[in-house]
Amino acid sequence: MCEANVYLTGGAPNEEPELYLAAVDEILPDGEDAWKLKSIFGEQKLLNGRILSMNLVDHRIIFKKPEGAGA
Amino acid sequence: MCEANVYLTGGAPNEEPELYLAAVDEILPDGEDAWKLKSIFGEQKLLNGRILSMNLVDHRIIFKKPEGAGA
Repeated sequence: MCEANVYLTGGAPNEEPELYLAAVDEILPDGEDAWKLKSIFGEQKLLNGRILSMNLVDHRIIFKKPEGAGA
Repeated sequence: MCEANVYLTGGAPNEEPELYLAAVDEILPDGEDAWKLKSIFGEQKLLNGRILSMNLVDHRIIFKKPEGAGA
């Protein structure tokens, strides 16, 4: 299965992105810098942020939190 | 391998998205509504548009052309 793990970071240089939702199949835009994620297990989660990078072979998609958003 | 095919559509209801780049591994933002794509074969292509949908298990990512862009 070719799902990906979705990570979220504040964007600081030494910050390790934290796992937001694992095994994501579907990502749909839900407004400006907002996204609906759905995992292969049916779990759904909303995410606010912008795509920072996608590496599909590594199953790794990183979003950056909106400016000024807390941790 | 968990690459995806990237499609581009004008967004008309009956329009079939056309393949823009196959076997994409890496997608990186490159400015406002602009993206750098890289396939597992090393092919690179720039894309202008917004993400319309991502279905990773189906290896299918669809972008929508910017408003007013030609075919």
